[in-house]
Amino acid sequence: MRIPSVSTDPAHKADVAAAAEWVAARMRAAGIEHVAVMPTAGHPIVYGDWLHAPGKPTVLFYGHFDVQPPDPLDLWTSPPFEPMERDGRIYGRGCSDMKGNLLLPIVAFERQLNVRFLYEGEEEIGSPSLGPFVQGHRELLACDMAINADSGQFSEDQPALLVGLRGNTGLQVDVRSAATDTHSGLLGGLVANAAQALAHILAGLKGPDGRILVEGFYEDVRMPSREERAAMAALPDDSEELRRAVGAKALAGEPGFTPRERNWIRPTLDINGMWGGYQGAGGKTVIPAEAHAKITCRLVPDQKPAVIAALLRDHILRHAPPEVEVTVHVGAGRSEPYLVPLDHPGLAAAARALKSVYGRDPYHTRMGATVPATSILRQDLGVWTIPFGFSLGDENAHAPNEFVRVSSMLRGEQAFKALLKELAG
Amino acid sequence: MRIPSVSTDPAHKADVAAAAEWVAARMRAAGIEHVAVMPTAGHPIVYGDWLHAPGKPTVLFYGHFDVQPPDPLDLWTSPPFEPMERDGRIYGRGCSDMKGNLLLPIVAFERQLNVRFLYEGEEEIGSPSLGPFVQGHRELLACDMAINADSGQFSEDQPALLVGLRGNTGLQVDVRSAATDTHSGLLGGLVANAAQALAHILAGLKGPDGRILVEGFYEDVRMPSREERAAMAALPDDSEELRRAVGAKALAGEPGFTPRERNWIRPTLDINGMWGGYQGAGGKTVIPAEAHAKITCRLVPDQKPAVIAALLRDHILRHAPPEVEVTVHVGAGRSEPYLVPLDHPGLAAAARALKSVYGRDPYHTRMGATVPATSILRQDLGVWTIPFGFSLGDENAHAPNEFVRVSSMLRGEQAFKALLKELAG
Repeated sequence: MRIPSVSTDPAHKADVAAAAEWVAARMRAAGIEHVAVMPTAGHPIVYGDWLHAPGKPTVLFYGHFDVQPPDPLDLWTSPPFEPMERDGRIYGRGCSDMKGNLLLPIVAFERQLNVRFLYEGEEEIGSPSLGPFVQGHRELLACDMAINADSGQFSEDQPALLVGLRGNTGLQVDVRSAATDTHSGLLGGLVANAAQALAHILAGLKGPDGRILVEGFYEDVRMPSREERAAMAALPDDSEELRRAVGAKALAGEPGFTPRERNWIRPTLDINGMWGGYQGAGGKTVIPAEAHAKITCRLVPDQKPAVIAALLRDHILRHAPPEVEVTVHVGAGRSEPYLVPLDHPGLAAAARALKSVYGRDPYHTRMGATVPATSILRQDLGVWTIPFGFSLGDENAHAPNEFVRVSSMLRGEQAFKALLKELAG
Repeated sequence: MRIPSVSTDPAHKADVAAAAEWVAARMRAAGIEHVAVMPTAGHPIVYGDWLHAPGKPTVLFYGHFDVQPPDPLDLWTSPPFEPMERDGRIYGRGCSDMKGNLLLPIVAFERQLNVRFLYEGEEEIGSPSLGPFVQGHRELLACDMAINADSGQFSEDQPALLVGLRGNTGLQVDVRSAATDTHSGLLGGLVANAAQALAHILAGLKGPDGRILVEGFYEDVRMPSREERAAMAALPDDSEELRRAVGAKALAGEPGFTPRERNWIRPTLDINGMWGGYQGAGGKTVIPAEAHAKITCRLVPDQKPAVIAALLRDHILRHAPPEVEVTVHVGAGRSEPYLVPLDHPGLAAAARALKSVYGRDPYHTRMGATVPATSILRQDLGVWTIPFGFSLGDENAHAPNEFVRVSSMLRGEQAFKALLKELAG
């Protein structure tokens, strides 16, 4: 935690490499073999294994040793890269996300089943090198399942398994109405306004009630069973707390679903940015000749990113006002929605391990965002990733005064040891 | 024309002052009295008069001696501030707009009626000092009518009187959905998207057919008579030429009116700029917490800027999605629509003067934009301004290779002399 391994900042490139070396040394000290700091196009990846348990399963542990930038520095009570314990919590950048969690499988390592470690230094920048690395090292990484230590629990007393993540896809819309911006007096009433045309296109993507109007958008969405909805409804309702935290007048989203359902199991469409014409102080009486929007969708099983992007593109082009030129560029970044099969044996093993420590069955939770590693390991290695981490939602990950509870780490070590025993059978 | 009196560029402040001195000297040489270069908060104004014709009307000549910047310089065939005659045309910045026209009333000056001159140096930047100056010098400027030499004719052979200009009003809309941008994965489906809300608001201002949907917007619009529409329809149709010039796929605007009618006698509403969220390269998966738009309307008789601004503001607030905060700021800049009463004696005198030179009755034309001086003189001096200038639409005003026809200037001098005779009665 004293190494400022900020992956997004080129000035910290050597620090990310130093963190990789630290992790590698720690693995070697634990008796893990073939430990190597392996180069990628970006920051290095640390690999290690121990494969001397014939007939036992092989489990791959995933984690990352890079962290978010510490800004704004003046909001930290103690310096971000000088970890300090106060009241049973350790404060410092990366202690919750995830320098605490990444130690747990190393500390818990015992010679009872086959393990591989795959720790990267680019999770905080979207894991751009992980896919190519996995594709290039399929044999080295072959395993029966993966365990993702970059995860958390529901509360101090309540364990959870994060079984589902949403996928995504996105595109940019460009509207052009003339060769250049024109004078809204001299040509007003004659030349189409690109910003107005874009507003019509964007407004047509969603009803005022929040329902997405793209034809076919919801077609492949798997409806949750009555039991799944009941299980979600049984979880504590944190929506009012959330509303206050984000400073919103009201929460909003698709009608017919609870806030949690809208975030976990329903797809979304968001304008991430839009612009056209004059943005400076005062006024400028132009008719904008061009206007642009970036749009992404969050996807749920069984939506396919490429299918949704095509539906969205076709909808936009079909509804484009005839007097303007509309082009659509589908973005390169996309990921599949992720949902661990609920009968996966790893999930059952993880649940038993958590119960042995917490004394309670874990909730099944989901998250509205994407963890690139899960899709990459699914697609390129063919394995499901079981979430098994011990951070909590209030620990200021990505914010000043990040901390982790010492008690979580102690329970995490116990739980990992229990998990390894469960998996070794 | 050798003085680069570019009013928008502070580096040319002394040049604008030098142009004012040049104009003053030229007025004095013509026998005009009380000539003074008078300071304002911006560039100076040149005043002069000759008031020795008791019982005769007093006419105020308006013009401006500032010019647009000459950029892009490399597109000029000869240097912009070294006027050069080629093929009966004089090339140089300002010769069409309006250093040729401003000379005509001075050259045509004869001791036959009372005249005042009011020449400013800020027309190209929106005449910000003219209103305060006129308000502060109402007695000095008192007159029966004004003549605006900053005007033009329909073609080389066809005279015209620009009887109508549109007014304008504008506002800014600000939408907020949360305290800060949020993560479109972690909070997608929960937090309202400010850009989406703004798109709905903006789309609701106009139908897809171009008709403005603001309640009451068209209520005060004076419908043209059958005769007026017939006169407009009789003018040569330049809409296809215009479409090509602006590089548009198609012209667009309110249904039920010809392109010329949409530009001259119908009001418009244009988004001048809109923005929200991420505009950089690639993608950023945020839900924008704020989004903004600048909107202006062009107005026609008998719409009132303040009334239209209030209707627009109320419409926006009434249709604001309930989950976001919407604020509307009505802008300071506004001008009344302008239409010279068609029975104004100055208009008849101008028509007779033009016919005596061209041998044809002038067309009555309008323009979609605003000339601030006309509204200022109407509001603060209580007089109508009669357009009487000799530029033509193809003379590259505001563009490289601006020119004016020598023949236009010669006809202009004749026509101004005829006008003064007509007005002296």
